[in-house]
Amino acid sequence: MLQSPPAIPGMSEHEIDTPALVVDLDAFEYNLDTMAALLAPTGVKLRAHAKTHKSPVIAKLQMVRGAVGNCVQKVAEAEILAWGGIPDILVSNEVVGPAKLSRLCALSRIAKIAVCADDAAQVAAIEAAAADAGIRMTVLVEIDVGASRCGVQPGPDAVALAQRIAASKHLIFGGLQAYHGSAQHKRTPDERRALIGGAVDASRRTVEQLRQQGLDCAIVGGAGTGTFQIEAASGVYTEMQAGSYVFMDADYARNLDESGAPVSTFRHALFVLSTVMSQAQTGIAVLDAGHKAVAVDSGLPTVWKRWDIRYTSAPAEHGKLQYGSETAAPKPGEKLRLIPGHCDPTVDRFDWYVGVRNGRVECLWPVAARGGLS
Amino acid sequence: MLQSPPAIPGMSEHEIDTPALVVDLDAFEYNLDTMAALLAPTGVKLRAHAKTHKSPVIAKLQMVRGAVGNCVQKVAEAEILAWGGIPDILVSNEVVGPAKLSRLCALSRIAKIAVCADDAAQVAAIEAAAADAGIRMTVLVEIDVGASRCGVQPGPDAVALAQRIAASKHLIFGGLQAYHGSAQHKRTPDERRALIGGAVDASRRTVEQLRQQGLDCAIVGGAGTGTFQIEAASGVYTEMQAGSYVFMDADYARNLDESGAPVSTFRHALFVLSTVMSQAQTGIAVLDAGHKAVAVDSGLPTVWKRWDIRYTSAPAEHGKLQYGSETAAPKPGEKLRLIPGHCDPTVDRFDWYVGVRNGRVECLWPVAARGGLS
Repeated sequence: MLQSPPAIPGMSEHEIDTPALVVDLDAFEYNLDTMAALLAPTGVKLRAHAKTHKSPVIAKLQMVRGAVGNCVQKVAEAEILAWGGIPDILVSNEVVGPAKLSRLCALSRIAKIAVCADDAAQVAAIEAAAADAGIRMTVLVEIDVGASRCGVQPGPDAVALAQRIAASKHLIFGGLQAYHGSAQHKRTPDERRALIGGAVDASRRTVEQLRQQGLDCAIVGGAGTGTFQIEAASGVYTEMQAGSYVFMDADYARNLDESGAPVSTFRHALFVLSTVMSQAQTGIAVLDAGHKAVAVDSGLPTVWKRWDIRYTSAPAEHGKLQYGSETAAPKPGEKLRLIPGHCDPTVDRFDWYVGVRNGRVECLWPVAARGGLS
Repeated sequence: MLQSPPAIPGMSEHEIDTPALVVDLDAFEYNLDTMAALLAPTGVKLRAHAKTHKSPVIAKLQMVRGAVGNCVQKVAEAEILAWGGIPDILVSNEVVGPAKLSRLCALSRIAKIAVCADDAAQVAAIEAAAADAGIRMTVLVEIDVGASRCGVQPGPDAVALAQRIAASKHLIFGGLQAYHGSAQHKRTPDERRALIGGAVDASRRTVEQLRQQGLDCAIVGGAGTGTFQIEAASGVYTEMQAGSYVFMDADYARNLDESGAPVSTFRHALFVLSTVMSQAQTGIAVLDAGHKAVAVDSGLPTVWKRWDIRYTSAPAEHGKLQYGSETAAPKPGEKLRLIPGHCDPTVDRFDWYVGVRNGRVECLWPVAARGGLS
């Protein structure tokens, strides 16, 4: 069942029940505004990734600042956004099976929907579902620009698949999906430029070969928070799919800028508020937030503004803190903000965002697509 | 919001929408029966840990086979069990803050509730909450038997805290909580015996010192799926807190028995059913279940009965499979069962169990305490 909200608007931050997913609204809005300002001069659009936030509320705040819509990874996420009024949604992923394709086609009656394919049999399956529903579905060809995961090879393979889409009665060829995920977290600008340079070249070559066959790409989409400024300047990409910029996590904060300092474009806006529940051992305190509350796939969380305290291990329901003899022991009942190692899966562990401004709870927003795996 | 159930009772397993949390009901019942049979001759009781399953339905099936009740890690889990009719619940953990303690005291009007403490100030806080609620709360002293996490030191420190509990007007001293978590996953029986031997010695010594002060331990609780047969034979422990035995995960299956073979006491009963969504690259297939669907904190999942296919990486929404040239490539639409590396947090990612027997869906059970972090 849905969990009760851990707070009531108007209460102070230290009254929030923990563990809780807390959004610093000032930092969050700064991030939204900064992304809009950075992309405005490029002519490239933001199609923010909702896999990060899973919230139609946040999707709307992105659109207010110029985003063309959102992308998602799952049909269940697309449903939540469309039901919440988001008008333009790309599933930046393959969707397999007649049941899921029927759901996607049904959604296209209430929002503009597009989906990706990397396989001829899948194109046939989408065509069958669209024909059955009596609609036309926009399909992008996903190309592999370095992730070695999904995607056909750029060039002739991609062109052949695009032609198959364009020749399908109920499908519209929508362009290319060209996302390089692992490039986002390379630590130096040189590493990120090298990988995205390859993605840009592959995309440009494929766009040109498609054009020679009379196929235009309405969308060339990709990029994340780590590299979007490179793709945005490429002249090839038309839509940026950054998601994490709204919150920033500890892992993205380990990326470096040209000067060798941590990238500071965006601010930490997402925290897991946690309470010390035990301080029975010297030099050790235990929080009520372990890996069931804060994702550890991209490293352990860090403790906000308490750089003298390290979060050193995450069992399922406990977070172990260690600190030196110069630090006053955190006492049971004391509340600390954790910066998650990875914001996307951390958000997915909660039912509610608690929006905080000036130390007080301003709003509660549901993590409406939490658990939307299908 | 709550996710829709991914199946309808009566459909065949391959019709289940994915990713889905599938329980092999025959294997699951075998595990329940096996635990009951192993503990029956020892006189030691099972107080199964519900942090694993988060389900009053499964808790009841454990009690039908002789469990005295359940333990949980969080007040939110205790609420779900008590509301679902479970009559005897131990929070095997510290509970901090007046709001949570009030909830716990309220629960004690509908079920027998106990909680742990490792700090004098916390004992005072529980006493205040119990007095305010007009109830008496049973409190166990948590002792540190090797985990270096929560818990006072065994011996005099534990005795002093127990005396403080016993002297509190609204508290009842309930015994000792003495769980050694990291011992559960030591690979060899010798390693597990060595660590649990230390826990047993520390518990025995503390029980005797308490008795000398006139304090009896109604409960000496601890043990998990990896070691419960050692604690059960100790003559000191009275209640076993095993949880994972109901499902068995890939990590527990890496524990070895006396012969050096993987422990085979229990069967794999929990799976994440997943669909191949892309097979665009030679030797690689991609599943629709990444680390948002299957926990990777204790290692990657393995593919059930397809030992020729390896699950080699888990991005958030994709599971990458690799296989040799002798294996026929899994095709998009094909469904595979994954054995999670860690069952507890995998369960916590889903709203529904899908119970399967003889290839057909028999039942849907809610993961009622999913997300119960507080």
